[in-house]
Amino acid sequence: MNVDHLSSPVGYEPLPIDTPYGDDPAFPLHHRGKIEMRPTVRVRDNAGLALAYTPGVGRVSQAIADDPSLGWSLTWRSNAILIVTDGSAVLGLGDIGPVAALPVMEGKSLLFKEFGGIDCVPICLDTKDVDAIVEAVALIAPAYGGINLEDISAPRCFEIERRLQERLDIPVFHDDQHGTAVVVTAALRNAARLTGRTIPSMRVVISGAGAAGVAIADMLLAAGVGDLVVCDRGGALHPDRDGLNAIKRELADRTNAARETGDIASALRGADVLIGVSGGSIDPAAVGSMAPDPIVFALANPIPEIHPDDAHAAGAAVVATGRSDFPNQINNVLAFPGIFRGALDAGATRITEGMKLAAAAAIAGLVGTDLAADRIVPDPFDPRLAATVSDVVARAAVEEGVVRGRP
Amino acid sequence: MNVDHLSSPVGYEPLPIDTPYGDDPAFPLHHRGKIEMRPTVRVRDNAGLALAYTPGVGRVSQAIADDPSLGWSLTWRSNAILIVTDGSAVLGLGDIGPVAALPVMEGKSLLFKEFGGIDCVPICLDTKDVDAIVEAVALIAPAYGGINLEDISAPRCFEIERRLQERLDIPVFHDDQHGTAVVVTAALRNAARLTGRTIPSMRVVISGAGAAGVAIADMLLAAGVGDLVVCDRGGALHPDRDGLNAIKRELADRTNAARETGDIASALRGADVLIGVSGGSIDPAAVGSMAPDPIVFALANPIPEIHPDDAHAAGAAVVATGRSDFPNQINNVLAFPGIFRGALDAGATRITEGMKLAAAAAIAGLVGTDLAADRIVPDPFDPRLAATVSDVVARAAVEEGVVRGRP
Repeated sequence: MNVDHLSSPVGYEPLPIDTPYGDDPAFPLHHRGKIEMRPTVRVRDNAGLALAYTPGVGRVSQAIADDPSLGWSLTWRSNAILIVTDGSAVLGLGDIGPVAALPVMEGKSLLFKEFGGIDCVPICLDTKDVDAIVEAVALIAPAYGGINLEDISAPRCFEIERRLQERLDIPVFHDDQHGTAVVVTAALRNAARLTGRTIPSMRVVISGAGAAGVAIADMLLAAGVGDLVVCDRGGALHPDRDGLNAIKRELADRTNAARETGDIASALRGADVLIGVSGGSIDPAAVGSMAPDPIVFALANPIPEIHPDDAHAAGAAVVATGRSDFPNQINNVLAFPGIFRGALDAGATRITEGMKLAAAAAIAGLVGTDLAADRIVPDPFDPRLAATVSDVVARAAVEEGVVRGRP
Repeated sequence: MNVDHLSSPVGYEPLPIDTPYGDDPAFPLHHRGKIEMRPTVRVRDNAGLALAYTPGVGRVSQAIADDPSLGWSLTWRSNAILIVTDGSAVLGLGDIGPVAALPVMEGKSLLFKEFGGIDCVPICLDTKDVDAIVEAVALIAPAYGGINLEDISAPRCFEIERRLQERLDIPVFHDDQHGTAVVVTAALRNAARLTGRTIPSMRVVISGAGAAGVAIADMLLAAGVGDLVVCDRGGALHPDRDGLNAIKRELADRTNAARETGDIASALRGADVLIGVSGGSIDPAAVGSMAPDPIVFALANPIPEIHPDDAHAAGAAVVATGRSDFPNQINNVLAFPGIFRGALDAGATRITEGMKLAAAAAIAGLVGTDLAADRIVPDPFDPRLAATVSDVVARAAVEEGVVRGRP
């Protein structure tokens, strides 16, 4: 492991690291960060300087000023995105602020490059005000080809994403919503195949109406699920419930056709699928009350809503979690590098439901004949993954016409 | 030259580059940009993923949330800066906007890494409103250890720098002002030595009261120049002149002790030094009217205020320009990598006049016994340069007490 990469090139003693980290191997790995900026051209002498910098760079800048579309080909913009957080909903840690969120953003930047070849710059915002976030991100967008929103709490994340996408002609993608929804949809396609179900025939219950729950519901509806109930701590969302925020009310109108009003245990009776993205807990007896061979995705991290062993003991045919130490990890890294790679390669101006559904189908398809109860998603290190996903995403973007005009 | 580095790792055809660039070698060099983000740790398997990303990264983030000072050692922040422009005063091209400014910012990022080992992220702002710029930059600062402002027009640049520095506890440095001032001061020290002058004894005329002119004046006053006149298009700045903006008025109060009211030609009579940062032109006869063996820095780019041949013919003993194809190029790359390297290594919270004066002395000192009329500044590729500058800058920061408390 390369743990001390940014040694100062000069003689002065850099800021000493004298805080004992203990014996957790994560700490030396993260020491001085996990990413760097590097030149891709080498300047060896004054002649090189005169091409890469003044006066040569002035001719390039003037060409872009004369024809702004050249900004896509004569800068890094067509391959560079921002990863933006306000540190308000970081992993399972909650609102830990912008600097504490930075190691996560660096980790994601690392994964974007490693798996998608994408240059991803971390932006950790010193505000949680929606207007201020939208304004700041929109103003800094011109050097970038996409925005990945990350670890921003609900319901603010919905408005921030919507307003930024309305304002910018580059993709704005809240990964905690859509990356999760894509991988859940992929996993659910394979779990359905394994248990002899079809997507339209399934009764699905989502526990949790935050960023992930709302996006999963949207995507499953787009994928053709007809019988869908979303529960929060107050039980099933239905149009007559008081005190719902705008997002939940809108979701209640589009789900729960039977107008169920009970709690999660009530909703689960006879259901085919439970998708937990709540951080709460699910009683094994409730899993026992589901339809035969139920599908249980208990995605809360680090503590799943129900332990996989308990879910299986209660009759679950397929169990997935968010953890790497159980089978069937629902890991966004299966989706986001390929989705952004495809969007950037196509010159996409947004990421549509169609592009996400195409990504989900491609991810599911990679499992192929390996499909088994403990193998409903591909391995993140599957070398076909990003290329397969980006290919279908780029094609879907072109088909849907959400690409920039080409010069 | 590495001219096509960001080939898509996937099968989909990337956005085609079908615009003919002609035969200017700058264009293929800048194709797809000149910088990239890269991981500094390698994730080879799921165990690595569990350390670099979840769940391992969660322990690192929690540690920073518990002790924010660890944000400096457990992220890239101590080595990463933002380069910020609004595209309003790019090189000699003027207000060409944020995207057209990006090739210049990428070039500067390249130089920061190549010469200073610093990770420098380009931010090109889609606004020229001072309030909006200050707000956006302050909000995105938490992941960075410094701010380099670049190519922002005067007088807005002064207020933006001042307000950001008041708000942030990391260095905020407008390179067009201070980088230029440092290198001019270094060059002037050597030109004075060469012509048998001392800094306090010289009469200096600055032509131009924009970003560079104001900063050079400030620094020369700090360096001990006693007789200093700054001219703009309206002639010498003096306290009784009408219509001066706040910055020029303040400068008029501190310069021009003799209260001269004439034009630049009048101010130059008997002067020892002309520093042109105006983009205007200087008549050779005006140089001929200066003191014997005058020093002429004609720094406008790409067209100096007076051609070096004409300046020499008019009697100039030492001539410097901003161009790489004449001797004595006043090039900011001599200063900014070492200044930021030193500031970051020391954990500096700002960059003071003392740190800049130390940098200027160190740059001048590197010329040593090579000093000649065509060699008053070191070569940008002098391998001692960044280390020497950063060392004195870091020491000055510690001496002046403008460093963060160390854990």
